[in-house]
Amino acid sequence: MFSFSQVSERVESEINRLDFDRSPFGLFDPIKYTLALGGKRIRPALTLIACNIYDDDIEKAIQPALSMEVLHNFTLLHDDLMDQADIRRHQPTVHKKWNTNTAILSGDAMLIAAYQLVGKTAMPFLDKILPLFSQTALEICCGQQYDMDFEKRSIVAEEEYIEMIRLKTAVLIACCLKAGALIGGANDVEANHLYQSGIFFGLAFQLQDDLLDVYGNTETFGKNIGGDILCNKKTFLLINALQLADEKQKSLLAFFINPANSFTPEEKIQSFRQVYDQLFIKHLTRQRINDYYTLAMQELTNLTVSDEQLSELKKYCNLLMQRDF
Amino acid sequence: MFSFSQVSERVESEINRLDFDRSPFGLFDPIKYTLALGGKRIRPALTLIACNIYDDDIEKAIQPALSMEVLHNFTLLHDDLMDQADIRRHQPTVHKKWNTNTAILSGDAMLIAAYQLVGKTAMPFLDKILPLFSQTALEICCGQQYDMDFEKRSIVAEEEYIEMIRLKTAVLIACCLKAGALIGGANDVEANHLYQSGIFFGLAFQLQDDLLDVYGNTETFGKNIGGDILCNKKTFLLINALQLADEKQKSLLAFFINPANSFTPEEKIQSFRQVYDQLFIKHLTRQRINDYYTLAMQELTNLTVSDEQLSELKKYCNLLMQRDF
Repeated sequence: MFSFSQVSERVESEINRLDFDRSPFGLFDPIKYTLALGGKRIRPALTLIACNIYDDDIEKAIQPALSMEVLHNFTLLHDDLMDQADIRRHQPTVHKKWNTNTAILSGDAMLIAAYQLVGKTAMPFLDKILPLFSQTALEICCGQQYDMDFEKRSIVAEEEYIEMIRLKTAVLIACCLKAGALIGGANDVEANHLYQSGIFFGLAFQLQDDLLDVYGNTETFGKNIGGDILCNKKTFLLINALQLADEKQKSLLAFFINPANSFTPEEKIQSFRQVYDQLFIKHLTRQRINDYYTLAMQELTNLTVSDEQLSELKKYCNLLMQRDF
Repeated sequence: MFSFSQVSERVESEINRLDFDRSPFGLFDPIKYTLALGGKRIRPALTLIACNIYDDDIEKAIQPALSMEVLHNFTLLHDDLMDQADIRRHQPTVHKKWNTNTAILSGDAMLIAAYQLVGKTAMPFLDKILPLFSQTALEICCGQQYDMDFEKRSIVAEEEYIEMIRLKTAVLIACCLKAGALIGGANDVEANHLYQSGIFFGLAFQLQDDLLDVYGNTETFGKNIGGDILCNKKTFLLINALQLADEKQKSLLAFFINPANSFTPEEKIQSFRQVYDQLFIKHLTRQRINDYYTLAMQELTNLTVSDEQLSELKKYCNLLMQRDF
């Protein structure tokens, strides 16, 4: 079995070997740039680790694993454009470094490149993995649509938010685990347990991201801290704060949510954090993260493989839960 | 054999059966809207007609044929956004009717939907058609990139322009013919002749589009006449006019190409047309269209099928060459 650090190294070297050094450079340079920005490469790593649970040989899973990373980076590129986010992984986003049209077209080309990679999946696996990949990609679009829809609404229910992040974040992590398992030779029942585990883990992962957006460290996080607060994003934190707040806290939040009022970004972030602290929102969110993480691990107990075979997946998930970036 | 009108009817009814009537409506309504705008449905029709050359049964080609139409409409949706075009098929474009973010995300979802359709291609055909589809989609992006690059340049060579429209328009038509033929059971040699014929036909088709943009009828054309002229697009017409113009004509064109000068859109279109007329650009373009059309038909003589089997394809191509829309 490969350790997760061996898998991660392999992923990184395979990503570096992807060839986007070609004409028209205006189209491919932004793809190269985006992929070179790094990131944690969680999705391809999970694909390979899931494959490795069932098969010592992970070669067949390399191209589909890469397709997951390219798909993920495509969604970031277009989401950052739609959200007008300036910074990603400490660097200017593509629409900032180039322009809007470049971000649109290079993103499109990146989605197609992701399909070229997943299309290299060997038969008979392609039969199952191609529809899974397309369904996942479409669900991510649905998640982004709900995310944008929610921005225009003053109230979003917690269940709606969880469904949105399930689509926007969790389904791709689930897809990686399922695809890897299938390529490793797992049957549908096994693969579906890994999918469900990926959904729970993905929810935990995204809630942690929400938490880091408020309490993270700018040095390591890679995005501007407080970004969600500044754009009034109804995250798990804000939804619960609005639920639990007393009248005074509610009107404080409402004041900063109203863009007509005058305040500095720092004042807004600080005030939100203050209310969150008063309401123990950090603790509440951590609790929910743990709940989902526990469900993810419970789901793995349904698998017909040894603890030893699951050890790297569990270690890696555990490591990701400790992250501060 | 099916007549091209039977094929077109079938295509239309299959497109109407595509189900985009679902939540989130903000994502899927623009896709429904785009596909309902009509258009000539040339690409799926060509796919089915090419299949029908080799097989009486065209059922296996229906889903891939639809994928070509959805892919084509995706490219129009994003291209119109990048080109800031307001009107398509007599109706407001998606970014005008909705907004930029909707055009980005619904376009993305449409590209994924196209892949979902092509993914339904039966084995063993998927093995060849999926990479062909991806290569084609990526080449279309390259074509759009060159198109945008050329906008920033004052001089574009004719060969560069032809290569750009080969990528942006011809490869998809070629892909349709090849995919249809393969699904019909044609071998690679046959399918590649159809591909090459499609390239020539696609070039003829695009040059005719350039001509219609200047000399077409607003009532039937569906886009604003003179759009290429107003945005200084270096079409086959302008490239040749700049080549052939005397000093006086050159400075007239240069005056209107410079956005710093003041004139009405009508003045610009009229002046361009006047120069084009003086230089017989319409005649020159028609000649080139005929050349490519002849090459397309010559390529078909390499096929090992009877004239009877090719009759509907030839009739349909001929009809398209007579279009004024």
